[in-house]
This record gives sequence, structure tokens and C-alpha cells, in this order.
Amino acid sequence: MQRPALLIIDMQNDFILEGRPLRVASAPVVIPKCRELLDAFRAKGLPVFHIVRVHRKDGSDVEITRKELFRKQPFAVEGTAGAAIADPLAPHPGEYVVPKVRMSAFIGTELDLMLRTLGITDLVIAGVQTPNCIRTTAFDAIAYNYPVVLARDATGAQSDEIHDANVRDMQNIGVRTMTVRDLIATL
Amino acid sequence: MQRPALLIIDMQNDFILEGRPLRVASAPVVIPKCRELLDAFRAKGLPVFHIVRVHRKDGSDVEITRKELFRKQPFAVEGTAGAAIADPLAPHPGEYVVPKVRMSAFIGTELDLMLRTLGITDLVIAGVQTPNCIRTTAFDAIAYNYPVVLARDATGAQSDEIHDANVRDMQNIGVRTMTVRDLIATL
Repeated sequence: MQRPALLIIDMQNDFILEGRPLRVASAPVVIPKCRELLDAFRAKGLPVFHIVRVHRKDGSDVEITRKELFRKQPFAVEGTAGAAIADPLAPHPGEYVVPKVRMSAFIGTELDLMLRTLGITDLVIAGVQTPNCIRTTAFDAIAYNYPVVLARDATGAQSDEIHDANVRDMQNIGVRTMTVRDLIATL
Repeated sequence: MQRPALLIIDMQNDFILEGRPLRVASAPVVIPKCRELLDAFRAKGLPVFHIVRVHRKDGSDVEITRKELFRKQPFAVEGTAGAAIADPLAPHPGEYVVPKVRMSAFIGTELDLMLRTLGITDLVIAGVQTPNCIRTTAFDAIAYNYPVVLARDATGAQSDEIHDANVRDMQNIGVRTMTVRDLIATL
């Protein structure tokens, strides 16, 4: 990887903390692995993007299929503790925070423009959850011609089976997968 | 569904005919089911979009992860029989043919603009293959706020297991799934 950037996706309290309704089951495993990656990118001075879902309080920017869910149980609302990035992964000055209102980090955001501007050649993807925000972002990254390495143990879903099925589909379209350990060794 | 449109995706000879290197295994089952849907939309005078992958002969528009594959074995090349839509599903005059160079029918195409212009309220998705062009199109459709019905027996993958795992993930984000038979009854 010539000039990789790390994308850490949706590692926010509403999706991570125990007891939150939208918590992803694999969060406890994923958090420390994301932290290892983050530390490695920081140590090398490589760009880090924190991609976060942030919704308006009135829910007017929520997907059509989640309007009802949001009405009953608002999530990732701007300015709330639930929308904040989990403490162990809190952004440092100089790292990029990119808010989004959809699953893919490329839809309606400045991400592609920033990656081009920074001369990024490769993307390392981590965070939650595998079938949704991780996968749509990986597929869009390939569509935009960025080689992708999925940090497979720094991503997760509601079950290992869902995670594994999605990792396989991503591998089938040319997404590389590596463990955090092996990935850090290549930086 | 108030004003649905049918999207038939990638039902082209290179992905459908026996012996073609990129043939999707479920094609023989999917073709007649797509035809049933097509006949029903035609009978009701509802809009039909044939979404097709079409590449330049030099492969300059192919995804970064498929460049090597295309070099060895070109597929869906403009003007070739391989890029043509399978005979039983050949477009009628007045139906829309939308070429694309990526998996999602929304990336780099006029699809969203056409759907808005026609006042389409719902999308019915059929074709191949489930984990790639079908799923990316369904996820993007939801992102653009179109309710989606996946015609589950008019889509397919290289195995039933891959198909089923992807259908479940789509259901989990709010994609409705119906059989062709039930779907036609609602038109």
C-alpha cells in the first residue's frame, strides 16, 4: 500500500455500548482491534477518517425504511452522547470526521473528494457493521477504483455467520482481507 | 405500490448462457421468472428498465479488481453478442435500456434522474447476481429513498446459500421480498 488511509466506520456509542437498542453484538471484540489499527496509523502519521452516522433530531434525513424505527427510538442524533465516537477511539486533532446519513461512506459526503485531495491510494476499512455500512462502503470504494483491505477482525456483525458470509462476498469481488496483526505489519 | 418500475439487471448472454466464463449458475431458473415479471409489467403498461453492464473494448472502464480478469477474458463488451440481453428478455420499443460500468445501477447512470422524471414510487428488482449487482442496486435504491421489492425467485447467485444469505441481509435493512407469483398479484 503506497499511501493508505484508515476508515473507521460507525464506532459510536449508540452502536457500541451495552444496552443500546442498535448495539452491534460484536462490538466488544471490534473496539480493541480498531484501537490497535488506530494506534498503528497514528504512529506512522497516516491519515485517519472517522466515518459517523449523524441524524437531525427530527429524523428528516433518515432512510425511508428506518423512519418508523427512528420515530420510536431515535439513534445517532446530532449533539447527543449516542452519536459520539466511543471513548477509546475518540478522534485526535488532525484526523478527519466525516458525517453521513446513509450506509455507504461515499453517499452524500466529501469522502471521495478528500481521498483524492490527499492522494490516497488504498483504503483500510474497519468498524461496524459488516453487512451494512462496512460492505456498502467497501463496494463503493471498489466502484471508485480504490483497492480495499478489510481488517476482518476489526469489523463485525450481529453474528459470526452473517459476518463470515459477507466477508466471503467481499473477497469474491476483489476486496482483500487481513487480520489487524498482519495489516499493521505491512504499514 | 403506487407507480412501480421493473429493473431487470445484467440478464445478458455473457452472464446467462451455458459455457460463458462469467455465467451465473442460477441463470436457467432466473430467466423464465424474469420473463413472467416482464410480461406482467408489459400487460399493465408499467415502466421497464433493462440495466446492462457494457464495457469498452479496451477495458479502460473496468473496475480495478477486474482489470486482469477482463484482459484475459473480456466480458460484456459493447457491440458483441455477449453484451446483448438474453433473447427471451429482449427489450420492446418504449422500454429503457440503461448501460452501466459498475455493479450498482445507480453509479454513473441516468437511472435516478429517469425514475424521478417518470414519477416512479417503488422499484421491483430482478436479475443477476444477488450478492453484487442486485444487492448494490437494492441498497442504493433504499439510500435514495425508493421502497424496494426484491423478486426473490427472479434473482440468483452462484449457489442457493449465497443467494439466501444476501436475501436475509437485504430483508434486514427493509427490502421487501416476494415471489414473482405474489408480486404479479399486487400489480
